[in-house]
Amino acid sequence: MSLDTAATAPHERMQSALADDLAAVNALIRDRMASKHAPRIPEVTAHLVDAGGKRVRPMLTLAAARMCGYEGSAHQKLAATVEFIHTATLLHDDVVDESHKRRGRPTANLLWDNKSSVLVGDYLFARSFQLMVETGNLRVLNILSNAAAVIAEGEVLQLTAAMNLATTEDIYLQVIRGKTAALFEAACEVGGVIADQPEGVVRGLAAYGDALGIAFQMVDDLLDWGGSDGVLGKNTGDDFRERKLTLPVIRAVARADAAERAFWVRTIEKGDQREGDLEQAMALLLAHGTLEETRIEALDWAARAKVALDPAPQHPLRDMMADLADYVVARLT
Amino acid sequence: MSLDTAATAPHERMQSALADDLAAVNALIRDRMASKHAPRIPEVTAHLVDAGGKRVRPMLTLAAARMCGYEGSAHQKLAATVEFIHTATLLHDDVVDESHKRRGRPTANLLWDNKSSVLVGDYLFARSFQLMVETGNLRVLNILSNAAAVIAEGEVLQLTAAMNLATTEDIYLQVIRGKTAALFEAACEVGGVIADQPEGVVRGLAAYGDALGIAFQMVDDLLDWGGSDGVLGKNTGDDFRERKLTLPVIRAVARADAAERAFWVRTIEKGDQREGDLEQAMALLLAHGTLEETRIEALDWAARAKVALDPAPQHPLRDMMADLADYVVARLT
Repeated sequence: MSLDTAATAPHERMQSALADDLAAVNALIRDRMASKHAPRIPEVTAHLVDAGGKRVRPMLTLAAARMCGYEGSAHQKLAATVEFIHTATLLHDDVVDESHKRRGRPTANLLWDNKSSVLVGDYLFARSFQLMVETGNLRVLNILSNAAAVIAEGEVLQLTAAMNLATTEDIYLQVIRGKTAALFEAACEVGGVIADQPEGVVRGLAAYGDALGIAFQMVDDLLDWGGSDGVLGKNTGDDFRERKLTLPVIRAVARADAAERAFWVRTIEKGDQREGDLEQAMALLLAHGTLEETRIEALDWAARAKVALDPAPQHPLRDMMADLADYVVARLT
Repeated sequence: MSLDTAATAPHERMQSALADDLAAVNALIRDRMASKHAPRIPEVTAHLVDAGGKRVRPMLTLAAARMCGYEGSAHQKLAATVEFIHTATLLHDDVVDESHKRRGRPTANLLWDNKSSVLVGDYLFARSFQLMVETGNLRVLNILSNAAAVIAEGEVLQLTAAMNLATTEDIYLQVIRGKTAALFEAACEVGGVIADQPEGVVRGLAAYGDALGIAFQMVDDLLDWGGSDGVLGKNTGDDFRERKLTLPVIRAVARADAAERAFWVRTIEKGDQREGDLEQAMALLLAHGTLEETRIEALDWAARAKVALDPAPQHPLRDMMADLADYVVARLT
């Protein structure tokens, strides 16, 4: 989802509080995405990096480390690692989804080609591993390499779950953990580990990132239906057209009568979509109340994220992280 | 290149000498390519792993460690790491090259789709990092993450060097180091590092892998022209059709007169290839003697590989590694 905002949105307050760290992370990113020999690499990467993602993930690493009193600079390397992993997955996602737009600009696979997106993504993955190895912290390496595996597994799972009406809520949860929550979780957890925090704090930070990521992705999936109020907007319905099973649909399918099931089989499994089908799908989600249920689930995960911060030290950055959890679900209410 | 063989080919003798280690590595590969949740992953991977590459790269890691007296089992994890990195790059290469055959079987991108090849490749990269992190050896992590970056950079470089007549011998060397030699080098080097060898031995092993990989790739590039004798076979000319600049062409371009240069501009830069052009290209390579020169370069790199083994301990595996260097260039003489 996009984090558009009032001037005092929590991620903007975090940006101010972490300005020096973020400047160092940006310098590190620019330095490490360079390639003496293959200028195509910084071209492609800069296209994406300059498009200005909000750096939420690296900011979480910086915030987690700083609020735990960390005073070194290894957290900047970890933050850059996290952003590189994120950027690499975006490049590969755009190839897999055959996307043409990302952050309001043409995607790299459109501007250059799929080959460049695949190979530059690989380069960024490799650079991210170099960066994390430089910290010399084996526990951090363990967390981040596990996250990379969960992310890739989730992407493959999403590929095979699409168009499959047998997709369960468990599979959905695993897909969104892979595509979103695993990196949020690792980003927060390594901040605590590098700051040498007790186990309870580290676990709390990991649980915060996991829950925040799940809430974030559920909101994203709900906004693809225009939110929970059942009004389709002009940027809605992509998931239906791409035959992706997100939570509102999975629940509506589970409760479908024979006629409704035939509708889902035709539109999602067989991909035979006609005029009016999107509206019909929406009517079914409303009839079964699954948009509203998904909204409540997202709020629940945001609440869990806040509770998970309990063991962490009192700090203004901790308050901003708590506010961020409210913020990601605020557009739904 | 393919290593077809007499019964006593050096890689077959290595296979016998390392049979127990290789069985453990194969078990590890099978175990780690599994995915509880995404069965597509082991399907795609098994397709490639079972097709039976000769496991040259993991064997180099095992051989390097064992000849240095290593008695633990971490070298098996490193060997599996190396094979996973190799398999991941094959999956991505097939997408980039739009290949339809690999090891005599249809490629994964053809049997499943490009999406699966990209994402399963990512999964194997992530698994390879998990495996190497498990060894807990930071120097090994450093070597392998650097190799991964060199590999990806080399692939991007190859992409931008294709069709570009300004490609120099330096760029060619860097491309083949990236696509082949970097992983050979790292495979050998980590074997010495895990066996806790003195710096001279480790450097020698790395230099052996680098030189072996370069010889290996030069032979491959030469065989694409049917070898050095100037007779085109039925499996020749792919690089010319794909407009890739390998060493024989780079040197012929450097010495071209105006008419010859016009030929290369038309066929390689503009991609306007007509009947008889492949034969004409071959005539130019023969006229400038660049096939024979490339053969001599490959022999020279094989010789360097053998010399690089000097600091390593005397051991039957060391002799087999030396023989392997002769073997990879033997098909050219």
